[in-house]
Amino acid sequence: MSPTDLIDKPAPADTSLLTRRVTVAPGMCGAGSLFFGQLGDWTWEAVKAATGTNVYAARSADGHPTYLSFYYFRVRGSRHIQPYGIAFGDEFDVTSRVFDLGPQSVMTLHRLSRPGTPATGLDPRAFHEEQREDCLYVENYNRWISRSHPDSNEGLVEASPAGHRHEHLPPLPAEHSPRGICGRARKAGTFHPGGIPGRTASAPYTTTYTLDRVRDLNGAGLMYFASYFAIVDTALLRQWRALGRDPRGFSRRTVVDHRIGYFGNADADAELTLTVRLWHSDTVAGDEIADVAVTEAATGRLLAVCSIQQLLEDS
Amino acid sequence: MSPTDLIDKPAPADTSLLTRRVTVAPGMCGAGSLFFGQLGDWTWEAVKAATGTNVYAARSADGHPTYLSFYYFRVRGSRHIQPYGIAFGDEFDVTSRVFDLGPQSVMTLHRLSRPGTPATGLDPRAFHEEQREDCLYVENYNRWISRSHPDSNEGLVEASPAGHRHEHLPPLPAEHSPRGICGRARKAGTFHPGGIPGRTASAPYTTTYTLDRVRDLNGAGLMYFASYFAIVDTALLRQWRALGRDPRGFSRRTVVDHRIGYFGNADADAELTLTVRLWHSDTVAGDEIADVAVTEAATGRLLAVCSIQQLLEDS
Repeated sequence: MSPTDLIDKPAPADTSLLTRRVTVAPGMCGAGSLFFGQLGDWTWEAVKAATGTNVYAARSADGHPTYLSFYYFRVRGSRHIQPYGIAFGDEFDVTSRVFDLGPQSVMTLHRLSRPGTPATGLDPRAFHEEQREDCLYVENYNRWISRSHPDSNEGLVEASPAGHRHEHLPPLPAEHSPRGICGRARKAGTFHPGGIPGRTASAPYTTTYTLDRVRDLNGAGLMYFASYFAIVDTALLRQWRALGRDPRGFSRRTVVDHRIGYFGNADADAELTLTVRLWHSDTVAGDEIADVAVTEAATGRLLAVCSIQQLLEDS
Repeated sequence: MSPTDLIDKPAPADTSLLTRRVTVAPGMCGAGSLFFGQLGDWTWEAVKAATGTNVYAARSADGHPTYLSFYYFRVRGSRHIQPYGIAFGDEFDVTSRVFDLGPQSVMTLHRLSRPGTPATGLDPRAFHEEQREDCLYVENYNRWISRSHPDSNEGLVEASPAGHRHEHLPPLPAEHSPRGICGRARKAGTFHPGGIPGRTASAPYTTTYTLDRVRDLNGAGLMYFASYFAIVDTALLRQWRALGRDPRGFSRRTVVDHRIGYFGNADADAELTLTVRLWHSDTVAGDEIADVAVTEAATGRLLAVCSIQQLLEDS
């Protein structure tokens, strides 16, 4: 009856795996970041089911609220299924699996498939190396954090919830750990420090954005992870217009790979600087990768790094 | 397991009534309009359960998509429970009931109560006349509509889905029908055509807003009903700043009554004009009602009328 009814309860032998049949509701899709927000909610659900920790009300051993924050978020699709091409009424089987990344982190993989697609487990190698055109693949690397100052969203620190269990979760093969990718992106301010083979970058485009207390804060007063998607899209749309492109085409992009590394939070009304570098394919017209860095204007503090591969409608 | 698991399936004798136990997830709350979006999703769920019509993929008899659009949306709360005071981890029992308003409309009431609150049915008289301080009350009046031009969000027309059943639903007592209120508000451009007794209005504040294709469109390309809440809040925050008030206080308002009448839709990039008139209580400091009209700037077409009673934090 509910759009997120479980169709398979996790078996006692493997609480790391969760499967649901979903009918997409208006609040899960559209032009904005609602779909990404829904993916994140599924991650929280899966982590709660797999670890037994109440992620919605977790506290550290010393009693402070601790949040299952998003550190790395990747969505891979195709021309057949992509985050901005989902409409209400669409049906998916959502398969989720949670992996051990130590006491303060957790890795969750989701695969969205159309009902009727042959079901398989969620093996990290298959997930990364055998992607199907008719499935959407999501990686969420989360870290447990806590505020170091009650009234500020700066200086968030790692803080695992009291009694958090993780040793029973399946391990993630080292070659599929996102830690190295994130560490390098954080250091370099980009997922592409050495450029991108077969692509040429245009001159960087820079714009500013004021963190919006009407739109961008979550229920704990922190910058909402899904808002980063909308904020980055705001910069991409401004650049799109500056390039003289038809804005309607922006709404018809196909986003086949979307990655965000979350490296900082900020308070409402903070001024952000967004720098976009577009990497055009040397061989395929209309295939481009937007390489975006989000910093706090006043301090230069890096808040996020983003890489978005998009196909233009006429490509 | 899922945050929206049903705790009581609707009994065959009364499919109009639906009850769920909910744990609020990050995607259901926060400063923006996510909570209102969630309420609307519950309305769709309740209407589907009560009428058997698949609201997510409805079509008219001639095969065109038809949408269960929001025409009137009211949320009433208190200092104890209000839309902007909900955090993830909060638990509610959500009781919903769907009423007959003819072949092209439907009325849904929701009551949110804390688990453990004595359960009662959802009788319209009690709903309107016996409100508890510890419950949140929601009225959604929806109309079935269809696009009259496939590429435009203007000129939406009424269009009931093929085979839509409604005669079995409980009738809504005439005194609780929203039709009169909406008709008058649409004609006058305000819910308060005769002023508000015991309150004095300040000079109108006007601002403009460009309909944002990154944030404001739903999965069918229409202006998303929940976005109206964020757009109106954008105007209220600008006025708040213009009055020299501390923006942090805006995030700490208590909204005890929020009404929107949806009278038009618009396309992305449309310029909107928002006019806000603040009605201050003559006796209670910090108790004000924002009376807002949203029009399309180019044509003067009325898109929405809004009335928000808010209590400032120091009141």
